Parts: sequence; structure tokens; C-alpha cells
Amino acid sequence: MQKNTNLKSYSLKEVEYYKVHGRTEDDMYPLPLFFNGSGVEVNVTGSELWIDLEVDCDVHEPWIWTAINGAFMSRQMLLPGSYSICLFRSMSPEAVKNVKFMRELQAMSEDDSCHILVKGFQTDGFFLPVSDRRYKLEFIGDSITSGEGTYGANEDTDWIAMYMSSSRNYAVMVSDALDADYHLFSQGGWGVLSGWDNNPNSNIPSRYEKLCGLAGGEFNEKLGVSRPYHFEKWKADAIIVNLGTNDASAFNQPAFTDPVTGKTFKQRKNPDGSFNPDDLMRFEQAVIDFLAMIRKHNPDSHIVWTYGMLGYDLTLAITDAINRYQKQSGDENVAFLQLPNTTGETVGAHAHPGVKSHERAAKVLIEYLKPILEA
Amino acid sequence: MQKNTNLKSYSLKEVEYYKVHGRTEDDMYPLPLFFNGSGVEVNVTGSELWIDLEVDCDVHEPWIWTAINGAFMSRQMLLPGSYSICLFRSMSPEAVKNVKFMRELQAMSEDDSCHILVKGFQTDGFFLPVSDRRYKLEFIGDSITSGEGTYGANEDTDWIAMYMSSSRNYAVMVSDALDADYHLFSQGGWGVLSGWDNNPNSNIPSRYEKLCGLAGGEFNEKLGVSRPYHFEKWKADAIIVNLGTNDASAFNQPAFTDPVTGKTFKQRKNPDGSFNPDDLMRFEQAVIDFLAMIRKHNPDSHIVWTYGMLGYDLTLAITDAINRYQKQSGDENVAFLQLPNTTGETVGAHAHPGVKSHERAAKVLIEYLKPILEA
Amino acid sequence: MQKNTNLKSYSLKEVEYYKVHGRTEDDMYPLPLFFNGSGVEVNVTGSELWIDLEVDCDVHEPWIWTAINGAFMSRQMLLPGSYSICLFRSMSPEAVKNVKFMRELQAMSEDDSCHILVKGFQTDGFFLPVSDRRYKLEFIGDSITSGEGTYGANEDTDWIAMYMSSSRNYAVMVSDALDADYHLFSQGGWGVLSGWDNNPNSNIPSRYEKLCGLAGGEFNEKLGVSRPYHFEKWKADAIIVNLGTNDASAFNQPAFTDPVTGKTFKQRKNPDGSFNPDDLMRFEQAVIDFLAMIRKHNPDSHIVWTYGMLGYDLTLAITDAINRYQKQSGDENVAFLQLPNTTGETVGAHAHPGVKSHERAAKVLIEYLKPILEA
Amino acid sequence: MQKNTNLKSYSLKEVEYYKVHGRTEDDMYPLPLFFNGSGVEVNVTGSELWIDLEVDCDVHEPWIWTAINGAFMSRQMLLPGSYSICLFRSMSPEAVKNVKFMRELQAMSEDDSCHILVKGFQTDGFFLPVSDRRYKLEFIGDSITSGEGTYGANEDTDWIAMYMSSSRNYAVMVSDALDADYHLFSQGGWGVLSGWDNNPNSNIPSRYEKLCGLAGGEFNEKLGVSRPYHFEKWKADAIIVNLGTNDASAFNQPAFTDPVTGKTFKQRKNPDGSFNPDDLMRFEQAVIDFLAMIRKHNPDSHIVWTYGMLGYDLTLAITDAINRYQKQSGDENVAFLQLPNTTGETVGAHAHPGVKSHERAAKVLIEYLKPILEA
Repeated sequence: MQKNTNLKSYSLKEVEYYKVHGRTEDDMYPLPLFFNGSGVEVNVTGSELWIDLEVDCDVHEPWIWTAINGAFMSRQMLLPGSYSICLFRSMSPEAVKNVKFMRELQAMSEDDSCHILVKGFQTDGFFLPVSDRRYKLEFIGDSITSGEGTYGANEDTDWIAMYMSSSRNYAVMVSDALDADYHLFSQGGWGVLSGWDNNPNSNIPSRYEKLCGLAGGEFNEKLGVSRPYHFEKWKADAIIVNLGTNDASAFNQPAFTDPVTGKTFKQRKNPDGSFNPDDLMRFEQAVIDFLAMIRKHNPDSHIVWTYGMLGYDLTLAITDAINRYQKQSGDENVAFLQLPNTTGETVGAHAHPGVKSHERAAKVLIEYLKPILEA
Repeated sequence: MQKNTNLKSYSLKEVEYYKVHGRTEDDMYPLPLFFNGSGVEVNVTGSELWIDLEVDCDVHEPWIWTAINGAFMSRQMLLPGSYSICLFRSMSPEAVKNVKFMRELQAMSEDDSCHILVKGFQTDGFFLPVSDRRYKLEFIGDSITSGEGTYGANEDTDWIAMYMSSSRNYAVMVSDALDADYHLFSQGGWGVLSGWDNNPNSNIPSRYEKLCGLAGGEFNEKLGVSRPYHFEKWKADAIIVNLGTNDASAFNQPAFTDPVTGKTFKQRKNPDGSFNPDDLMRFEQAVIDFLAMIRKHNPDSHIVWTYGMLGYDLTLAITDAINRYQKQSGDENVAFLQLPNTTGETVGAHAHPGVKSHERAAKVLIEYLKPILEA
Repeated sequence: MQKNTNLKSYSLKEVEYYKVHGRTEDDMYPLPLFFNGSGVEVNVTGSELWIDLEVDCDVHEPWIWTAINGAFMSRQMLLPGSYSICLFRSMSPEAVKNVKFMRELQAMSEDDSCHILVKGFQTDGFFLPVSDRRYKLEFIGDSITSGEGTYGANEDTDWIAMYMSSSRNYAVMVSDALDADYHLFSQGGWGVLSGWDNNPNSNIPSRYEKLCGLAGGEFNEKLGVSRPYHFEKWKADAIIVNLGTNDASAFNQPAFTDPVTGKTFKQRKNPDGSFNPDDLMRFEQAVIDFLAMIRKHNPDSHIVWTYGMLGYDLTLAITDAINRYQKQSGDENVAFLQLPNTTGETVGAHAHPGVKSHERAAKVLIEYLKPILEA
Repeated sequence: MQKNTNLKSYSLKEVEYYKVHGRTEDDMYPLPLFFNGSGVEVNVTGSELWIDLEVDCDVHEPWIWTAINGAFMSRQMLLPGSYSICLFRSMSPEAVKNVKFMRELQAMSEDDSCHILVKGFQTDGFFLPVSDRRYKLEFIGDSITSGEGTYGANEDTDWIAMYMSSSRNYAVMVSDALDADYHLFSQGGWGVLSGWDNNPNSNIPSRYEKLCGLAGGEFNEKLGVSRPYHFEKWKADAIIVNLGTNDASAFNQPAFTDPVTGKTFKQRKNPDGSFNPDDLMRFEQAVIDFLAMIRKHNPDSHIVWTYGMLGYDLTLAITDAINRYQKQSGDENVAFLQLPNTTGETVGAHAHPGVKSHERAAKVLIEYLKPILEA
């Protein structure tokens, strides 16, 4: 194959027009893609386009997907290194191609080395502006929002990177259908009060106010993950919380013992199988506090707490918390929406919602959000 | 056409085997079909079967549908009179045919003359036992559960009998899918606290404890509609309440003035569009009281309050009431389930849920109830 | 129920505007509804509408269905007698209601008494014009086009009237989707050359040129069923033939012996299971001759021979015949279209295509006809 | 990332168990993947698996997709070079993983350098036998069978590698549903008699008898592409031909002039738009000859000629040819099956069938083939 000698390399700093998806800060260079659904989008002419990357991880290798003109084109594993990936070749040079390069893997709290940095592009074309979509949506969640199980066979039970996605994800389906840009903030196994295993550190609210509080380690710190996130720069029209599933699991799991402090944590059930009322209140208070935190940073956003894709167990507790939050705060712009439970027909890998479950949930959310956004 | 001279007339009293659908009492003769979904079912041999009826109404003529071997066969208007209807002809005489004759029209609180009485059958075959289904489900609701809009064109806006049904009704779909017998108790326009028009008399709880408290007038009284209903004779495995839609409407409608007492009733909104908290509490108290009433008569039934097919406005108020009821009573066997809102794609006649909306709601309910019933 | 004293009776002769569906002649009074899909349609104001009928049959009672404003409303058996049926009541008087009264049962070659005559209407409103649809389609077929099996349970095996329909029929679905008026000409068990049982009289071509050559007997003769049909008065844009299924059966059935002449007829198979070439040629010649007959009466219509809803056995023979007809005639306006075979998933009563099979076939036909009609 | 030091390299010669998909010869090393749908499948334990490749092309870079345990996992472009690709990492070592590495791009007659060679694997596990599927199916076709348009946006019109696939391909869907191994033999733009542009060399029959007659050039010749293919080593239960679409186009395209000989070729239409009978006969003869060629090499296979996914224009000509072939040969094991035309709803990139069209065609074929294979 003869090399395309017309290719020119552009550091991202030199690229006049590109659009960043996912939480970010101005002028990050190289550009980190922190979350699943984080990515970079360009409109470009030319016959060929490459993206220049720097990638690392310890255990959980990141995956990415690409779209050309809005259509899914590729999905692959990224292994550590500095290299370039060809995004298209041999296309009609004069036509403007819309290209998205998107992260599949969630921010990885358990792999401090994990990162994707976009350094630049190579092309024989030139870049054109990428417009914003009509609305802005933020999705906050757990493994469901991390798309776990949207890839992989039903019998697959490993907890590994390749089963997570933004490419087959209800949050992205909703955003595409409503012409909305989206931010995803999610971590598999985490909850509002504790993780699925009663680990009280695995709670989303403790990380929500930082740029990417879900990533850690020296390298990521240098990227700024722990800096306060500037909510006012990207005002979400609606914020969709999809949490509670792991908090429900915690009631059925053994106590968690902190390896450092030796302290234990456990959400208890009564002998008759009902929830221990004190622990339920503790969960509800976490919901109330998180709603207050979200509202503080997003004064005008519609907030809808969604629940149900992996069971309805905490429906009453969540709604009780929302009601109490509403009475305390007078906040009338908060709502509860149940999403259809995952069934044998709609399940994916690792007993998580499959793509059919995501499609079904997306439909309910699209119908719910449409009139609210258009109001 | 030559008359089938082998036909023999059987008063219902002489029919050894038949099954009554819908609330009833032992040995009613003639047999009144009070509700939509009320009906009579037989297993019969022979080539031909007729049913002998006595029908009346002032304004709202009853409709019925029939099924042969479980398949929808006919649907028609019944006008006043004493007459017989042929349910099948020319069939293989030796085969056992399962035949259902079912009422489409809800119990009609606004037409005291309205009734269907089954007096007997004519056949050249003989009757065989009809078995019970595996489970028993009771559905309590408003126009949605009365199937309003499941027949008729989207542009139809008359409030008339022919648009209501049990033949295209989520309650029946759920019951068929789960192998369950069903009771329907519903009235279009009614709520838990008041009707859509703020009429405080149009509340379901005030009628729930009577055999068919939704029907009135001298004739119906003689049939026993106001007698206490014997809940213990037909123990529902689950009770599905689908109320709140008209209570939500009341907040947007003018005050109701009682034509007799001159007293007015009105559920108010605040100037900012939010619900008046006192009136919301009044609604919630009605929900709490109704749950207590249902539980009193059905100590072992799973109770699920469903809501959403015509809007989610009172989701938080209903869940608040359920939570409060649960805390007061310690009743752990009560739940909340949101049903998908009706959309432009799924709407039927008179701006009510169409058959597609009923099918979609049924799917969610089937998935919800299956593990509970099988537990 | 108080009688509506504003009702006025109109003989059909007095009704200024009504539309007849199905083959008919000008000014027939009373109006016979010969075929499934035959019917009468009115646009009418008023609160109430009745239709006045005269009905008879020996064995196979006719069924009808009605639609209000395009939506299916009722379906019922008609027994012999002169009587009136209420089509709607209590509707907003000023609104114009579109009402269709349609025959479900095919023209009944085996019941000379069978007929439905429309004598007039009763209403408190007045009649308005009913417009023609954009296109005209004629469907010629067998039990598939008679809708056999579109009602009834999968296990039902009787050959009786109530399982046939025009209300769940691919021909009507196609016509509705394409904004087309339609004529149906079909008879269960019949073929191009012979019936399913090798009866050579059960061939559609021998009856096609008469008004309703499928009905017989003294009464029907007086109605004019044997008069030549005036094709030029209703010029079909496309003619859809769906025949061959019973001709295929004949190869697998014993010989037919004419009870009068004693002559036998049999389509034979070779010992190896292939078709006897002479008998196949005899079938193909019948196809060729029928195409020529259809073309003679419909010089400008697109003719498409469809096949496959109950098996693909004669695909090659039918296409061979069409090719030979085309070469002989130079007729370029004839085509072959395969329709999807009925499967376990789509089957209806009596091992015939169910409503899902009709829907699927309709989709293929709609897609096929749309560009041809719009050309 | 720490390197997995337990990885061992295996030349393909050393791999005891692996399964080759697509036409191949015994013991090819390195293993060329000639066609879309060609690939290599292993059952392997261990935590990690890599594949060692040698890839080249001039213009049309090959794409591949992978599946883990039967579920689609990745899809990516392969650029020239010798390198390894990681197929999975971090999986439970003891579990047996089924892995497929499959070519997306058709054999590329227009790029002599294009090839993918599999040299071996690296893993920390061991290989286990891969069983054959129950049936064997061969699909012969054009761009439809090359999956052109199954990836890419509807507005994409480039003729490039990335829009073709075996991963979203009716042939693979059919094979998966019927538990069948499959061979694909297809080339975009080619026909039975000539290509879409009247190029008489672009005919599939001229290449069918060679191992991979669609690939050329020195390198591919050394791989053995022009060697006679040994049909008797992989006996197809059914052979599905999907050709004629480009032959139909040729009638509407200008004449082709051979750049070497200067000879022209043109399938003509008559002034009235009908096909020139001589040219149609020439096409039909090519169909007849190809059927004879297929039969010669596959004496026991069921042969079904399918047609229609991009228009029905040559339906009658194809069936005429099949009929004539059948009469000449007495071959009763050949059939014709129409596949549903692609519509605005089902179209993909480059005006070719999209994934919905492939799914729909697959359904018809699955239903057709199932009883034949099971007979």
C-alpha cells in the first residue's frame, strides 16, 4: 500500500474545529477521554483521517468505537502505547465527513493507569465547525449506565472492560433521539450510599463534584480529575439519575470491612426479609443529600430519578426520599420514573441489561423527556 | 334455513357446569353480568349453542364479545329485550367447544336501567366442567380499566358505550398471559378522592365493598348490587389498583357543585402551577384509606398500585401515600408500579389508551406479577 | 330505553349518497352483498343509524363486520330474516360519521340460499357523498383471499363460515394502505384448473366473467349473479391473482369422480414424487388461459400473480406459464410475486394463514404495488 | 501494563484444534482468509488470546470482526504489515472461550495485493476441538452477499471496503439460525452474464470452479487462488444463488468497451422499455449454464436461486431459465425463491440493502430452508 503523502499532522491545538463529548475543561491538551461516552467529534474533508493517541492501563484496557456520518463503524480494544488509528480511507475528498471517536469503557476507579489521550489528527482534508445539539443531558449511574452487559454473550460472567459500552447504551440512545449532547458519570458496582458489596466508599455523590472523581492515581491527578467540575459551563437541561440498584444489593451482601481502618459497613435486612428501617433511612438520606447536591450545581435542570432496570426493590424507598427532599426543599422540578425491569428476553452479558433492555428503557425515557425539554 | 330440531333449552339452573367471570354471588338466577369482563363460560359439545338473555338500558346500551376456544369471534351491541343469540353453529358435534360470552361495557353508574341477565342456553350438546385458572387477579380502576378508547377511531370524542371493552384490555391480557381469573371493578371518570370533575361522590372506595356498588336504581338493587361483597369467597392473589388519573385531572378542572346540597368541591393548584399541599394531602389520605380498606378485605393479597398510562403527574403523591400507609401499617406486601404513558403512537379513541398502550402496559405488568405469583 | 322518535326510514332508493363495495351493478335494489369485502359505506350525520336487511342461508350463515370512522367496531353472525341492525347510537348529531357495513363470508358456492340484501337505512341525520379512493384493486383467489383462518383458534378444524373474513384480510390491508377500493373474487378450495380435491368444476376462471359466478340457485340467479360482469365500469389499476394452492393440493389427493357423469379427474405425481409432466402442462395451460381471459377484460391493468402463502410447490410451474403467456401474447404488464409462506408463528385456524401471515403478505404486496400504482 | 509472561506463541501448524471458515484447502500455512465470512475459530482456555497476522492491500484495506462465545465483540480496519491483535484479555483462565476472527471484506478482484494471512496464536491457555455445525450452506452472490451497505450511513455513496461485511449479512444470519457452516462466494457489481456496467468478464461462473477465482495477482496466485476447488471435500446441503441484480442493471447502462480488445458488450432494451429478447436469452442461457456447472460439482445439494433484494426486474427471466434448465436436465432439486425488495425503511449505505433488509431476507430463507434441510 502506498502511503498517502498528502497527509498532514495536526496537534489538537492546531485543529481549529472539533467537539469534545463528556465532561472536560477548556483547552485540555492532550485531550483526556475520561468516561464512557467521552469522545471527540470532527467534521472533515479529505480522503483519509487518522487520530493520534496515547493510551495506558494496568489491567482494564480501554475500548473505543467510531461512527462515520452517524453510523457505527468500528469497535476495538486499545492497548498501551503512543500510536495512530486510521478512522477512514479512500473516501471522496470533497465531501464533509462527520467522524466520532468515542470511549466505550467507563472511568475506571480500579485502574489508576487507565487513560486515553487524544493528541491530534492526520488528514489530507481540512476541519469544519461541529455544531452543538439542541439539548444537554447528564446521566448519572452505575454499571447500567456504564453499559455493562451490552456486549458479550449471555453466559459471559467475567467483569471485564470489553462488555461495557457507550455505543449500545440507553443514555446515548436517548440523547441521539432527542438531539441532545450528553455527559455520562457512572461506575459499575457503585451506589448512592454504598457499593453492591456494602463498601461505603463506592458512592457516586462523593465523586460527583470533581471533574472525573472516579479516576485516580498520580497520572490522572495530573490530568486534573480531582479539580472541581465547573457545572456552569455546560448547563444540563435534564439530569437523569439511575442509581439504587447496588444499594439494593448491599442489603443482601455480607458486611464490608475497610482494609485500612478495619471498620465494617452493612445494610441490614430484618429476619422477615424486609429492610432494616434504620438502614433504609440511611439510604434515603443519601438520596436526599445527593438530590440537594445535584440541585446546588444545576439550579435550572429538570432532575429525574430513574430506577428499575435491574429490579424494583427500592422503589418505595427512593420515592420516599424524593418526596421528603421535595417537602424540605420546595423543589418542584424533580421527578421519579420507573424503567422496565430486565427480563430473560432482554438480558445481556453478566446478568446485566442487554441492548434490548437499553432500547426499551430508552423509549420510556425519550417519551418522558420530550415534552419536558420542549416545554 | 332449517331449524335445528335437536336444540334443547336449559335454564341456567339446569346447566350443570358453567363458570361465571366477574364479581357474583352463588346461584344467582338469572345471572347478572355487572362489569366489563363479567361473563359466562361453558365447555359444551354439540353442533350449535345459543344463549338466552334479558337486556335493558336507558341510554348506554351494553356491548358484548364472544370467544370460541379462546379466540375472539364476535362483538356486538345488545339492545333492550328478551332474546337469544347464536354463539356457534355447524360445528363438529363431538368436539368440546370452550365458549365465552363477555360483557364489554363497564358497570354503568349513570344508567340505572342498564343490565345484562343470562337466563340459560340452548344446545344439541351437553355441558362439561370448566376449570379455574391458576391465579386470581382483581383490577380496580377508572376509564383505563374500563377499556375506554380501545375501540373507535383516534378522532372519536364521544363518551359512549361502544368504545369501552374487556376484549382489548390490559387487565384481560395480563390475566390471560398469567393463567389467571380476573375481576374488574372500574368506572370511567372516577378517582380515589373525587372524579375528574371534582365530584367527590365519584370515588371508587365508597363503592368497593358492595357487590357492584357502581350500579344503582331499583332494578339493580333487586339484583343485590348494594349487598356487601364476600371477599373471602374469591381470594385474589394480587390486586392491581390503577387509580389517580382522574384525581390529577380534578386539579385542572373547575369546582364541582353538588346539585342537591349546593356544596362545592375543588382540588386546587397554587399560582405557580404546583399542587396545593392541603389538597394533595387530602388525596394522599384517600389513597392511604383505600389501601387500608383493600387490605382489610384481602389480608393475603399482593397489592400493587399502578399509575402512568395517562400521565405521571401524581407519581410522587401516590408513592408518598403508599410509603405513609406502609409505615403506619407495617404492610410489606404493597408496591408501586409505573406503567408506560400513552403516546401519539399508542393512543386510541377519545384521547384514551389504545390497544397498543394496553398491550405495552400489560407486558410490564405481566413481567412484574409473574415472579410474585410464582413465589 | 326510549325509542328515538326522530329516526326516519330510507329505502336505499331514497338514500342520495352511499358507496357500494365489491362487484355490483348500477341501481340494484335491494342491494346484494355478494362477496367477502362486499359492503355499503355511508357518510351520515345524526345520533343514530340503523341498516335494514334481508338475510337467508341454508347452512352457512353470513357474518358481517362494521367500521365507524375507519375503525373496526363489531362483527356478528347474521341469521335468516328481515330485520334491522343498529350501527351506532348516542353520537354527536352534527358530526359526520363514516360507517361501513361489510360482508365477512365469501360468496358461497355450496349454499344457494345464502344472501345478504341491504334494503335501506334509518337515521335522524342526513347522508353526504362518499368519495372514491385513489386506486382500484381486484383480488382473485381461494380460501386465502376468503380470509379463512383469520378468525378462530389454531386448533379449530371445522370448515365453517365464522372463520372467514374480509376484516382481517391481506387484500383489505393492502387496499387500505394504498388508498384503493377493492373487489374480492375468491372461493375456498378452488383453483385455476381444479379444486383441492381434483374437482375440475371448482375452477375460478369458469366463473370470473359473471357478476358473481360463485353463487347459484334460483334466488341468486334472480339477483343476476350469472349475468356478464361489466369490467369496463370499474377499471382495476392492478389485478392480484392468488391461485395455485389448491391446484398443488390436487396432486396429492385421490381422483375426483363426477357424481353425475361418473367421469374422473386427477392431477398425478410420478412415483419419484415429481409432478406428472402432462398434468403439470394442463395446469400451466389453465394459468395461461386465465391470464388471457383477465387481460381481455382488463386491457390496461397491471396483473401480478402472487403465490406462496401456503407453500411454494408450484412456483416454477406458475412462472413457466406466465413466461409462456408473455411470449405468446407480448404482454409486458404481467408479473410474478412470491408471498411469504405461512409458518407456525403466523398460522391461524384450520391450518390456514392467520392474521400475522396476512399482515406479512400485505406488507410485501404494498411495497410491490406502490411504485407501480404511482408510476 | 505488565506483559502477560505466560503467553506462548503457536504457529498455526502447532495449533492442534482450529476451524477454518470459508473455502480453503487442507493445511494451508499461513492460512489465507479469502472471502468475507472466511475466518478462523478456536475454543481456547486461558486468560488471554492474540492472533498473529500478515496483511496487505493496495487500496481496499480489509476489515475484520470478532466474536467471543458467539457474540459480536469488535470490528476494525486491518492495515498492511505483520502484527498481532489481542482478541481477549483478563478472562477467567479455566473457562473455554469460543473465539471467531472473521473477514468482513469480500475477495477483492480489484486489488491484487489484498490479503489476510493468519500465522498463529498466542495464549496462556490451550486449544480444544471445534465442532462442525449440523449443515453446510454455500451462498453465491454479488454486492448483496458481500454485505455492501450493511455498515455506513444512508447518505454514504463511496464504494469502499468499510461498508461491506459478513457480520451483518443475511447469509451468516441464515447459517447461524440453521446451525450451518457457510461458504460465501460473492463480488460486488458482478452478475451471471456480465457486471452492472456490461463488462462481460465480471461474471461469477467464470471464477466459481477455482479456489478463489475472484482474487488475482502474483501473491494470490502463489496462495493457490486459481487452483481447482475441491467441491467434494465440503459438500453443501444447499446452495443459495443470489445473482441477477447486476445483470438487470446492465440493461440500463451504456455499452462496455474492453480496454484491451476494444470489443464492446451491451445488454439492450427495446424502445418501449422491455428487454431485448436476444439479450434476455443470452442472460437466461448464462443462468442455465451456471446451474449446470453448480450441479456438476454438487450432485446432491439443493439449489435455490434467490432474487429480489434490489428489485424484481428479472424475476420472469430467471424463472424461465430455471424452468428450461429443469426441463433439459430433469433436475428436480432446484427452486426459485423471491426475497423481499429493499425499501426506504430497510435500505443501508450506498443504496444497498441495510441490516434490516438482510434480516428480513434471512427470515424468508430460514423458513424456506428449514424443512428442506430437515427432510
